[in-house]
Amino acid sequence: MEIKSPYLLFLGNAPDALAAKTSIGVAQWRPEKCVGQLRLKGCNADSGFPDMSVKQAVAKGAKTMIVGTVNRGGVISKDWIKVLTAALDAGLDLASGLHNKLSDVPELAAAAKRNGRKLHDVRHPDREFPIATGIKRPGKRVLTVGTDCSIGKMYTSLALEAAMKSLGLKATFRATGQTGILIAGRGWSIDAIVSDFVAGAVETIAPANAPDHWDVVEGQGSLFHASYAGVTMALIHGAQADALVMCHEPGRPHMRGLPHYKLPDLQTCIDVNVAHARLTNKKAKCVGISLNTSKMTAKAAERAIKSTADKYGLPCVDPSRTGVAAIAAQLAKIK
Amino acid sequence: MEIKSPYLLFLGNAPDALAAKTSIGVAQWRPEKCVGQLRLKGCNADSGFPDMSVKQAVAKGAKTMIVGTVNRGGVISKDWIKVLTAALDAGLDLASGLHNKLSDVPELAAAAKRNGRKLHDVRHPDREFPIATGIKRPGKRVLTVGTDCSIGKMYTSLALEAAMKSLGLKATFRATGQTGILIAGRGWSIDAIVSDFVAGAVETIAPANAPDHWDVVEGQGSLFHASYAGVTMALIHGAQADALVMCHEPGRPHMRGLPHYKLPDLQTCIDVNVAHARLTNKKAKCVGISLNTSKMTAKAAERAIKSTADKYGLPCVDPSRTGVAAIAAQLAKIK
Repeated sequence: MEIKSPYLLFLGNAPDALAAKTSIGVAQWRPEKCVGQLRLKGCNADSGFPDMSVKQAVAKGAKTMIVGTVNRGGVISKDWIKVLTAALDAGLDLASGLHNKLSDVPELAAAAKRNGRKLHDVRHPDREFPIATGIKRPGKRVLTVGTDCSIGKMYTSLALEAAMKSLGLKATFRATGQTGILIAGRGWSIDAIVSDFVAGAVETIAPANAPDHWDVVEGQGSLFHASYAGVTMALIHGAQADALVMCHEPGRPHMRGLPHYKLPDLQTCIDVNVAHARLTNKKAKCVGISLNTSKMTAKAAERAIKSTADKYGLPCVDPSRTGVAAIAAQLAKIK
Repeated sequence: MEIKSPYLLFLGNAPDALAAKTSIGVAQWRPEKCVGQLRLKGCNADSGFPDMSVKQAVAKGAKTMIVGTVNRGGVISKDWIKVLTAALDAGLDLASGLHNKLSDVPELAAAAKRNGRKLHDVRHPDREFPIATGIKRPGKRVLTVGTDCSIGKMYTSLALEAAMKSLGLKATFRATGQTGILIAGRGWSIDAIVSDFVAGAVETIAPANAPDHWDVVEGQGSLFHASYAGVTMALIHGAQADALVMCHEPGRPHMRGLPHYKLPDLQTCIDVNVAHARLTNKKAKCVGISLNTSKMTAKAAERAIKSTADKYGLPCVDPSRTGVAAIAAQLAKIK
């Protein structure tokens, strides 16, 4: 599965930036792949790319329209279907991170067939995966892990890929969730894969590579999340990571979606993640901590970053405040 | 999903007892639900129940034919289809633990429809499950865990259910794999469920119950199996177990299917399982060790059981040699 670029970013009628975060994320992390955005009446989000029609985007070379916005009520509205059909008729593929499948909408399925176009429903893996072998494969891998879900693992991974490249390292971001897949143009949503095959899917997503090449594997969930820890466990084993980066949000009141669960102690969380990672890669170690301090003042964030680095004896960053060069430098030392 | 009893056990042309182990397991653990067996030419397995035709079984009240045998080459043969169709035509449902789905065989799908009969493909969950809430639910639960796959977790669970009942405890075996489901008549194959929903499925399989009721939850995989640990992790969290029983085979040379992985140290395995179980049930503890000594002499088995009990300070049994009363007695003490 490979999503063809360049992209036209569809923001629909997103009421705010959060609703269009997937399209905005693609614009932020892969601007070189984007030619413009398409917004409907009522859209209050902006990716920063010029507004254009489907036809204008095709004239600029676009190959795929990225449906990177949340629709209201989970139903693909009539307004959307009209625009999405026009995109298919103009020769674009569609790639969507929605829960509902584009291919389940009869008008879209028909338009795709009629035009020989592809519908990428990236939340819904359409292939089978092997059982994980656990056999050590060449290439180096760093995996982001976390105290909780939705805490900055994808963002940290993308920032690491960029920082590692700027140090001259060979680095490839490997996506395991829908937004990451739309950014990378490939990958599989591991939380949508049958449980027996998740570790095997990760072996496929981050395959054998040159000994000096790094895969930066996008983390999912948390070993301490009562709903999703199984996904995380399979990801850790499948990744065979040489290095882990722990992601955390200081002051988060409880585990996401679970008001009755506190976040784990950071040192315990690091130790447990490293211990499990060592099953499939004896060299696994934690090389840094990535904090999400988006709800803190600059001053408080600075204090949190420094005190965390001191307390745990590891480089500590907030990707959006400090960048991740301090962690990339640690990875550069791993031979 | 509830499989109607009594059962006619289909052993097909199983070349040996191992191939028919599912039907034989149903006969062993639920004899009160079985009326007879149906064997084809070349069958070398025996469940101990009288041989009979589909019509004879129906006359004895049978409601379902259990397809509890492995077919050669993964294809459902013509011989089988003839007998399975006859069963449907005679008014029986079919329940199968095969990888291939009965419902994918056109003749069987047509015969089921024609007769208003059900095809239970128990390896293939046909419903959706909720995301786990992690909210503590009433009722007590014991979960079997293990150093490896295929090491005696189902057998130990079924033996525990029986031993607990004979102590006057309320106990229900809860199946999480295909053989267990055919024995229990209900349950879901958790390794076939989409990864995000496995812990939630386990919350459904072993639901809230009376405070003095025990669910005996069938374990799957191992936290130390590089292919399947994610399934195990979700099972541990979803089960909210008060008690764990660790299953182990002394002398097993390597992890099942992974010749390059040794079995974990037993104490480490106990500690890690208990630590993860405590995320969703702070009272979780290991109450005993169940050894599979089937490849040892009686004398060596006796030594292994005694030395394991002494070394780890826990009751140690082999269900098929000593029974599991020593562990059931521990469970009876948990209020």
